Amino acid sequence: MHIGIVGGGQLARMMVLAGEPLGIDFIILDPAKDATAGQVTEQIIADYDDIDALTLLATKVDVITFDFENVPATALQHLESQCTVYPPVKALSISQDRLAEKTLFKQHGIETAPYAEINTLTDLHNALATLGTPCILKTRRFGYDGKGQFVIKDKSQADEAWQAINQQAAILEGFIDFDKEVSIITARSRSSDTPATSVYYPLSENQHQNGILHISRAPCDDEKLLEQAKDLLAPLIESLDYIGVLTVEFFVKGDQLIANEMAPRVHNSGHWTIEGAHCSQFENHVRAISNLPLGLATVSSPYSAMINFISQMPELKAICEIDSCHIHDYHKKPREGRKVGHATITADNKGLLEAQIKEILAIM
Amino acid sequence: MHIGIVGGGQLARMMVLAGEPLGIDFIILDPAKDATAGQVTEQIIADYDDIDALTLLATKVDVITFDFENVPATALQHLESQCTVYPPVKALSISQDRLAEKTLFKQHGIETAPYAEINTLTDLHNALATLGTPCILKTRRFGYDGKGQFVIKDKSQADEAWQAINQQAAILEGFIDFDKEVSIITARSRSSDTPATSVYYPLSENQHQNGILHISRAPCDDEKLLEQAKDLLAPLIESLDYIGVLTVEFFVKGDQLIANEMAPRVHNSGHWTIEGAHCSQFENHVRAISNLPLGLATVSSPYSAMINFISQMPELKAICEIDSCHIHDYHKKPREGRKVGHATITADNKGLLEAQIKEILAIM
Repeated sequence: MHIGIVGGGQLARMMVLAGEPLGIDFIILDPAKDATAGQVTEQIIADYDDIDALTLLATKVDVITFDFENVPATALQHLESQCTVYPPVKALSISQDRLAEKTLFKQHGIETAPYAEINTLTDLHNALATLGTPCILKTRRFGYDGKGQFVIKDKSQADEAWQAINQQAAILEGFIDFDKEVSIITARSRSSDTPATSVYYPLSENQHQNGILHISRAPCDDEKLLEQAKDLLAPLIESLDYIGVLTVEFFVKGDQLIANEMAPRVHNSGHWTIEGAHCSQFENHVRAISNLPLGLATVSSPYSAMINFISQMPELKAICEIDSCHIHDYHKKPREGRKVGHATITADNKGLLEAQIKEILAIM
Repeated sequence: MHIGIVGGGQLARMMVLAGEPLGIDFIILDPAKDATAGQVTEQIIADYDDIDALTLLATKVDVITFDFENVPATALQHLESQCTVYPPVKALSISQDRLAEKTLFKQHGIETAPYAEINTLTDLHNALATLGTPCILKTRRFGYDGKGQFVIKDKSQADEAWQAINQQAAILEGFIDFDKEVSIITARSRSSDTPATSVYYPLSENQHQNGILHISRAPCDDEKLLEQAKDLLAPLIESLDYIGVLTVEFFVKGDQLIANEMAPRVHNSGHWTIEGAHCSQFENHVRAISNLPLGLATVSSPYSAMINFISQMPELKAICEIDSCHIHDYHKKPREGRKVGHATITADNKGLLEAQIKEILAIM
C-alpha cells in the first residue's frame, strides 16, 4: 500500500509515523525543501499546482490524501481524475469556504453562530445593523489559526475591517458567549463490501491563546454532549460519503452545541490520541483511506492533555523530567507564532493531569 | 542532538521512530541497501569494518550506539577513539563472548547454568564426563536466535557436535530444567553531574519456538522475582558504568533466577513497552545515550503481550480487525525464519489478553 500526501507539515509527518508500522509507504508532495514530513519519508519537492508533479505522485500511490484543506481547486480536480482521493474532494471544497460550510451545517440541523454573507462594504454595513456588535468578519477562504479575521467591536470599524481582510468575499459572524470550546474527531472507513463504519473519539475541550490552540484536554466528561455530537455528525458524514478523519469544532453554551468549523483531516485538538487513545487519529485516518478496519477510538488513559509548543521548543532535558510527558518535536526551525511541537500528558486523575500541565507551562 | 546507529535493522528502525519525536536526528550505518532503518532516516551504506565510513559517521553525530552486539572489534576500537560510544565498549565486548559473559555473571553472584570452556575436542569429552547429557554446545562468539548451537543428547555425539560448530572456541552448558524464561530490561542514564539513575521494566515472560522468541507477556506477576532481578543487576550495571538499555534473560526455577545471557541493547522481549509502558525501551535507550532524564518504565496497560511475525506478515486487514492490536511491520522482504514484524496486544485482564493472542495466532 502506498499513500500520497499533499502537504508535508507536522500532520503529514505524524500520519507517516503512525502508518509506517502498518507496512504502508508514503510519498509527500510539498514545495518546501525542509518539509518536516520529508525528513521521515520520500518527498516530491513541487508546488501544489504543479500538474506534472501531481501526476507523478498519482502514478506512484494507491490513494492520495492531504495534511491541510486549502489545496488549490485545480490540483484537486486534476488529482481526482488520476487517482483515488480521500477524504472526498467535495468535503474539502466545502471546508475551504466558510459560507458553504455553514450552509452544510444548517442543512443537517446543526446550530451555528448567526452569520451573513458579505461581498461588499454595503453588505457589511447592512449585516452589522442586523447582527450588532461585537462580531467577527472572516474571509470565506484561506483562514486558519485566526488569520483572515477581524473582530469588530463598534460599527464605526466597518471600513477598517473591510480593508483589513483585503475586501475579500467574507462572512460576518455574531459572537457566541460560549461556556467552552470542544471538538469531535470521527473516522469513517469502508473496509469491505459491507456498509461503511465509523468511530468517534471522545470530545476534547480546547483552550486557545492568540487565536491558536494552546491546550486540549480529553475526554470532556459530558457524555450527553458526546452523544449529541455523534447524532449531529452521523448523517453529515453519510451525506458526504466521507472516508478518512473529520474534525468539527463546537462552541458549548449550556447543553447546546454550536458548530464553529470543520476540518476534513486530522486535527491539532486530536494529537492527544497518539498516547491517550488505543488507536490514534493519525493511524485511523491512514486505516480509513486504505480501506482497512478502524482501530478503537476509546481512551487508553483516563485523562489526557495536549499542550502546543509555539515559536520554539522548551529545553528537552526539562520536558524529559516531567513524568508521563510525551514529547513531539516537529523538527521545524523556530519562528514566531509557528507550531513547532507539542507534549501529551496522560494521567489517572484530573489533579495529576493539571499538576503536570502546570509543570510544562512553567518551562515554556 | 545527532545519534549514529551501527546496524540498520528493526531495532534501529524502532529507535529512530521513538527518538525522532524528541527532536533527535539519526544516521545509520549498514551495508544493506534496503536496510529497514534506512527507510526512515539517513543511511551510510558501508561495511561495519569500513574505517572511512565509521570515521564519517563519527564526525556527523554526538554519540554512537548499536542495534546488534556482534560489532567487529576493530570497528569498536576505532569508533571509541573518534566519538562517545554508548553502551560502553567493554559491555559489548563481554556480551560478544559467552565465556566472558558467564564470568561477569559469576563475579556478581548471579547464578548460571553449569558450564565448561571448550577449546578442543578433548575439552569437550572431558566436560561431557563432568556435566553429563543432555547438554548444549555453544560457540563463544556470534551466536543468536539458536544459531551456532548443538544440543548433545548422548556422549557419542561429541564429534558430530564439534564439527557442527566448525571447531570454534565454545562453551558446554548443562541443561536447566526451568519452569519459565523471563527477561529484565533496564536503562541507565547520567543526565547531569549527579550520580547516574536507572529504571527497570517489569519482567516479561518469554516463549520461544524453534529457538526464536515467539511470544512475550508482561508484566510477569511475580513481584519478588522482579526485586531479585533488580538486586542482581544493580551492582553489575554500576561496575560497567553502563549507559543505555541492557537486557538480561533468565531461566526461572522455583524462586531462583538463573542468568542465560545478556544483550547490551534494546531487545525483542521488550517490544511490548512501545504500547504497554509509559516510556518504551527504545525511547529510554535514546534518552539514556543522550544524557537525558529517563522516562517511566511502569506499565501503562495492566497486561501486554508481544507476538513475533516470522518469515512473513499476516494479512493486514485481518490484524486490523483485532481490537487493541498494535501492528509493527518492519518493511522487510519475506524470508524463511526472518523477523519481519510483531504485534502488541494490550488488555485490562489476562482473559482478554489470551483471547486476543489466540485471534492473532489464528491468522498467522
